[in-house]
Amino acid sequence: MDSLQPVLAVLARVLVGFAAAFLVPLAWAVGTGEMAEARVWAGGLLLTGGVGLLMRWVLRHHTRELLARDGFLLVTLVWIVLPACAAVPLMFTVPRMTWAPAYFEAMSALTATGATALIGLDGLPVSVNVWRCFLQYIGGLGIILLVVAVLPLLGLGGMQLYRAETPGPLKDDKLTPRIAETARGLWTVYFMFSVACLVAYRVAGMSWADAFMHMCTTMGLGGFSPHDKSFAHWDSPAIEAVAIVFMTLAGVSFLRYFAVWRNRSLGVLARDAEVRSYVTVLVVATVAVTVVLVAHGNYDSYLAALRVAAFHVVSLATTTGYASTDYALWPAFGPVLMIFLGCFASCAGSTGGGIKMVRMLLLLKQARRELVRITHPRAVNPVTLGGGTVPATVIAAVLAYMLIYGASIVGLTLVMLLSGLDLVTAFSAVIVCVNNIGPGLGSVGPAGHFGVLNDFQLWVLSFGMLLGRLELMSVLVLLTPQFWRK
Amino acid sequence: MDSLQPVLAVLARVLVGFAAAFLVPLAWAVGTGEMAEARVWAGGLLLTGGVGLLMRWVLRHHTRELLARDGFLLVTLVWIVLPACAAVPLMFTVPRMTWAPAYFEAMSALTATGATALIGLDGLPVSVNVWRCFLQYIGGLGIILLVVAVLPLLGLGGMQLYRAETPGPLKDDKLTPRIAETARGLWTVYFMFSVACLVAYRVAGMSWADAFMHMCTTMGLGGFSPHDKSFAHWDSPAIEAVAIVFMTLAGVSFLRYFAVWRNRSLGVLARDAEVRSYVTVLVVATVAVTVVLVAHGNYDSYLAALRVAAFHVVSLATTTGYASTDYALWPAFGPVLMIFLGCFASCAGSTGGGIKMVRMLLLLKQARRELVRITHPRAVNPVTLGGGTVPATVIAAVLAYMLIYGASIVGLTLVMLLSGLDLVTAFSAVIVCVNNIGPGLGSVGPAGHFGVLNDFQLWVLSFGMLLGRLELMSVLVLLTPQFWRK
Ligand SMILES: [K+]
Ligand SMILES: [K+]
Repeated sequence: MDSLQPVLAVLARVLVGFAAAFLVPLAWAVGTGEMAEARVWAGGLLLTGGVGLLMRWVLRHHTRELLARDGFLLVTLVWIVLPACAAVPLMFTVPRMTWAPAYFEAMSALTATGATALIGLDGLPVSVNVWRCFLQYIGGLGIILLVVAVLPLLGLGGMQLYRAETPGPLKDDKLTPRIAETARGLWTVYFMFSVACLVAYRVAGMSWADAFMHMCTTMGLGGFSPHDKSFAHWDSPAIEAVAIVFMTLAGVSFLRYFAVWRNRSLGVLARDAEVRSYVTVLVVATVAVTVVLVAHGNYDSYLAALRVAAFHVVSLATTTGYASTDYALWPAFGPVLMIFLGCFASCAGSTGGGIKMVRMLLLLKQARRELVRITHPRAVNPVTLGGGTVPATVIAAVLAYMLIYGASIVGLTLVMLLSGLDLVTAFSAVIVCVNNIGPGLGSVGPAGHFGVLNDFQLWVLSFGMLLGRLELMSVLVLLTPQFWRK
Repeated sequence: MDSLQPVLAVLARVLVGFAAAFLVPLAWAVGTGEMAEARVWAGGLLLTGGVGLLMRWVLRHHTRELLARDGFLLVTLVWIVLPACAAVPLMFTVPRMTWAPAYFEAMSALTATGATALIGLDGLPVSVNVWRCFLQYIGGLGIILLVVAVLPLLGLGGMQLYRAETPGPLKDDKLTPRIAETARGLWTVYFMFSVACLVAYRVAGMSWADAFMHMCTTMGLGGFSPHDKSFAHWDSPAIEAVAIVFMTLAGVSFLRYFAVWRNRSLGVLARDAEVRSYVTVLVVATVAVTVVLVAHGNYDSYLAALRVAAFHVVSLATTTGYASTDYALWPAFGPVLMIFLGCFASCAGSTGGGIKMVRMLLLLKQARRELVRITHPRAVNPVTLGGGTVPATVIAAVLAYMLIYGASIVGLTLVMLLSGLDLVTAFSAVIVCVNNIGPGLGSVGPAGHFGVLNDFQLWVLSFGMLLGRLELMSVLVLLTPQFWRK
């Protein structure tokens, strides 16, 4: 394919930009006197930036405007190469670190999954935790760009469903100008929420350092924490409330906030089918888990149960993955329901993972339509979304997506089982990685960590996180021979 | 709805016919001197036949030809009422039997699921085991009729996919003549295989009684056994080989055997895409499990591993559920793979459960098509099956089916978890019931039984078996308000 060099040329520019990210842990390390770490971050900056500049120079005669088709290769390459750059410094800053968990940790950060292979987080140099958390913030920026600006241009992703057209890339469209324009607006919204979140965490009682790191992992719906105990480190209702508010906000499409701003009215959110379903699901699940926790005797008072239920339902349904208690000890209904919600509850266009609420709505409408058609075969009963009729081809595409999603989960689970894991650990690890949720069940539950897995298992899960974050198709399309044909 | 009485009138006739089934355990009990049980079977005959005759008399002015729409109600009613009739005698013949496990057992028999709530099978009166097993034989007869003759007329079921038309019931078609004609041919094939299977089991070393009972549960792909140890009772390669052959045969559409007979050639089978995939899946899975068992050290020799792998792969993939060893002790990859195969491997038109291979083939083709369309949006690339193009509406129907299938499994699993079960038991129990496979994992594994579940859980699973056997839609359509409107 003749487009490899132009794609690599763009990747080189992304690397140069990404190198700047090392300035954050570098500044932190210098400011707090972690001089050994500071040298590593400086090295990461120089290495990443240097490789990027070298690639740019080598490929200087191969730049051209990218076309839609190049986009598939680019996004996959970006999400494979950036974690590698981000992982190298972990080898020199985390004791006894090896390559597979380092790459897993970096992939988990940049895909905002939040599954960690590290234990003893509180004992790490602070700049390492800053790096982990800041990577999730960058991941969030990248994800918004990806799902709102890039994937729709490629004819993919949940946002695509709002276009009343057959999915398919806009072959002859220039990518860069449209992406840059969209990015500016979205990132502005993201930054404004970030500032509010940072201040709110500080006011609620976190140190500035903790507030910054948790702001990063809240806005990206990543869920990393610099503390092994996650939110149990504080046991503070105020801090949990701040987290609930901003996790919920980040689970909504950032495009909606544009509209809210333009119309100076929250009615945009209140009328949006996806947002309504999202909020309804969060509320209903919180109530259900609260009742189960009291009925089962885990908590004496409804208020105490409501507090943990709301926090964990929102945390897992938005695919964040914070924990304030070991919810794996609850009746299995609770954690299973919450992980299940994580598979679909967040809205397309947010930083959340999973299949997205809009796909779930389409699927439910299509299923309902088929049930009606069995007895009323000639009834005209089109599936609608946001006022427009959804064409059959779009529905077929969503359903193919679902099959590939299911096949990926079953296939990866079988691979994990082959490697010797038990069913609950294998299945839950695959689910939480492909849906970019974070903590699973069994050995990789909220009280455990992914460091107990072997290298092979970590590589499989790293691939799963990549697959899920790029909404499957953009990775798998690279595996079809048709992609590489003219 | 004005069609309730005509449907009940037909149900009455089904009851009268079903009453004759009690003659088999009655004859057995009389022949072997189980006089207490004989009275119960006679009572069952009189009760079922009496209720049927009474209903016929009451509804004698309400008979008319059934239309397609009545069919939905009829099949669901048949599969709810017959298990009730079959369950009553179990209350009087099995020690300490209560209503929920009795109904579960009868539902498991008539849907050919094979999940048993009984322990101490070897200690039961033989006529009870004859009844359990013979119910699976009748279940098999009913299933063939249902999937080949009834569901296609209702615009439902896997066989429907072979018609190159939009699914939808043939509203104005008379049901009975077409069903009767199809039934005659199919049941002839079923009987011929049954005789061969009976003789083969006897020759391989079973007693006539065991041969009869296992023939019943092999042909229906039910998997009940009169022995707690199932096929470990014999530990005979010859008996297992007979089982493998006839389970494999019963997992193929009985319509194919028509064609083989008419053309006097096995080429019909060799050319059929569904049969080829079915056989390929069985062979590949057997090899995979064999290798895992040897690699993991469960068996020293490849031959010994091949023997157990082939038997259990075929047993579970065809949704039979016989066991010759506690395969739950194998590396989890084995049982999980085998149960996964049970969810789709058997062919539409067989007595097997699950979503059927034809749906899986369609889904795979559709997924492949969408992946290609991402890079070649204007390519004409229709999904084909058996030489014909599959219309988009048929694909949409299959995909809606898959969503309802997934939603049923997740929903029922959450209900089972709410009732206090662990995840592996709850999830596997739901999977094996909705797919009519039989033994699950955890507490309901091959060495366990469903009698450890409480009444509520048994009722939920009874509903799951009904749902799966009637291919979901025919039950769920009854829950739509549109069904009950004119
Ligand atoms: K996450
Ligand atoms: K079965």
